[in-house]
Amino acid sequence: MSKQPKAQDRKDAFNKPAREVLLASTEVDLAGIESNSSPGYDGDKASGAADLAAIGEELSELQERFFAASRAGAPHTILLILQGMDTAGKGGIVRHVIGAVDPQGVSHHAFKAPTAQELKHDFLWRIEHELPEQGLIGVFDRSHYEDVLIHKVRGLSPAKEIERRYGAINDFESKLAREHTTIIKVMLHISNEEQRGRLAERLDRPDKYWKFNTGDIDEREVWDDYMEAYQTAIRRTHTRDAPWFVVPADKKWYARLAVASLLLEALKAIDPQWPPADFDVEDQKRRLARS
Amino acid sequence: MSKQPKAQDRKDAFNKPAREVLLASTEVDLAGIESNSSPGYDGDKASGAADLAAIGEELSELQERFFAASRAGAPHTILLILQGMDTAGKGGIVRHVIGAVDPQGVSHHAFKAPTAQELKHDFLWRIEHELPEQGLIGVFDRSHYEDVLIHKVRGLSPAKEIERRYGAINDFESKLAREHTTIIKVMLHISNEEQRGRLAERLDRPDKYWKFNTGDIDEREVWDDYMEAYQTAIRRTHTRDAPWFVVPADKKWYARLAVASLLLEALKAIDPQWPPADFDVEDQKRRLARS
Repeated sequence: MSKQPKAQDRKDAFNKPAREVLLASTEVDLAGIESNSSPGYDGDKASGAADLAAIGEELSELQERFFAASRAGAPHTILLILQGMDTAGKGGIVRHVIGAVDPQGVSHHAFKAPTAQELKHDFLWRIEHELPEQGLIGVFDRSHYEDVLIHKVRGLSPAKEIERRYGAINDFESKLAREHTTIIKVMLHISNEEQRGRLAERLDRPDKYWKFNTGDIDEREVWDDYMEAYQTAIRRTHTRDAPWFVVPADKKWYARLAVASLLLEALKAIDPQWPPADFDVEDQKRRLARS
Repeated sequence: MSKQPKAQDRKDAFNKPAREVLLASTEVDLAGIESNSSPGYDGDKASGAADLAAIGEELSELQERFFAASRAGAPHTILLILQGMDTAGKGGIVRHVIGAVDPQGVSHHAFKAPTAQELKHDFLWRIEHELPEQGLIGVFDRSHYEDVLIHKVRGLSPAKEIERRYGAINDFESKLAREHTTIIKVMLHISNEEQRGRLAERLDRPDKYWKFNTGDIDEREVWDDYMEAYQTAIRRTHTRDAPWFVVPADKKWYARLAVASLLLEALKAIDPQWPPADFDVEDQKRRLARS
């Protein structure tokens, strides 16, 4: 059996860092980003699956070290925020990318429509409650961005309040970054046509009916409004502390590989170390032998 | 490429249901259960790994159906409670068994020493807070059983209170069972010698130092008291509603296979079904085509 190359020796799947290739900007133009493309990656679906498996192993190794370091006081946290239209693949990212990591190291939360109690508080209140602890990889499936996306498109909040929220989000995320949270904000970017095909599949397969809501088609009627709301939200909240990445997601395999790469790069940048012993190793060996 | 047999056609890894082979009783004798054995399984470590991978795929499939059914109102929940001495392998079960399942379908909680706030409440208060929602697989790494284990061995609570707790636990778990929670209580059973070896490994490997606590050796001095406390706890709280399973755990591969089998059998017994469409499929196809 041939030995796998060690994590640190393995060639990166991307030809440039994913965090550079996919980085948004304060002038991002969503219509100019081809949702069917695979920027930064030269391979195809088959090599993508193999690369994802290899990255999964690296993620799993590094996550353990990341967690261990936190037990010895390293202050870092990672927060991956997943946004995208229905069927964009948020759930698949969680299953296939986050699924590669020890469940003990993950704090996952899917935000639904706010409850009556949550509505009594500021929109960030429920978000604060779900922030991951030190040493964990937090994953938000939807997030506070719904409060400037569907709220804008559907007029659920006044325009002035939406304006206020962009600033509030930036302040909030800057505070998290100062507290050593690496924030990775991902928009999974699919085309209108791709969504139609994915919804059609849900209507064709009885094992997919449960994922279909008639409201999903209502939302298609305001697709362009959503794209505009996403573009504005990204422009207004793309910061050095909390950058946005626009991930072309018509190819599911590519989107998974891209998010896995973003996560891996973030962990490598933190470069967690195994904590040294806070006890005398030889003493403890003697005690153990006598026990 | 040869097609994998379908989940329901595959031969079970165990030669009898794990839930029968590993079932404890109200007269369980821990000393009589060989911690190095592999009851109900005829294979070895290599076949065990292959069987675990196959069970993982089945678990993953069935978990999705279990989750889907809950969205349509199926009331079931699963709660896996993992108990065992330090190094018994609770974390490894979570990583290698629960790790096979979509993170979105799992609610994992590791109970540590209670906080000051938790101590102001009854011992079951913090447990209630972490109960999994419908359709999720809840995993408790340690649990309310610590309140009749370490509390008994270390005299953290009076004997009379410990007595009260056995009854309170039975009432609590019966209530959960009536609310359609399948409770699987696992004691990972290792020998004193096996624990010594595993602790020695932690002292030999710098990437394992972080898992070592000098207190772990203190606990070895009262090993027999722990075994007695476990035995009493199992005898007093082994019920039809919430049975205990004693899983020989000196062989890590066997313990993982055994817990995976218990979980799979529980899911199969629930037999979740894909929910039917709650909308007119053909109508929605037409709407989608026009959208």
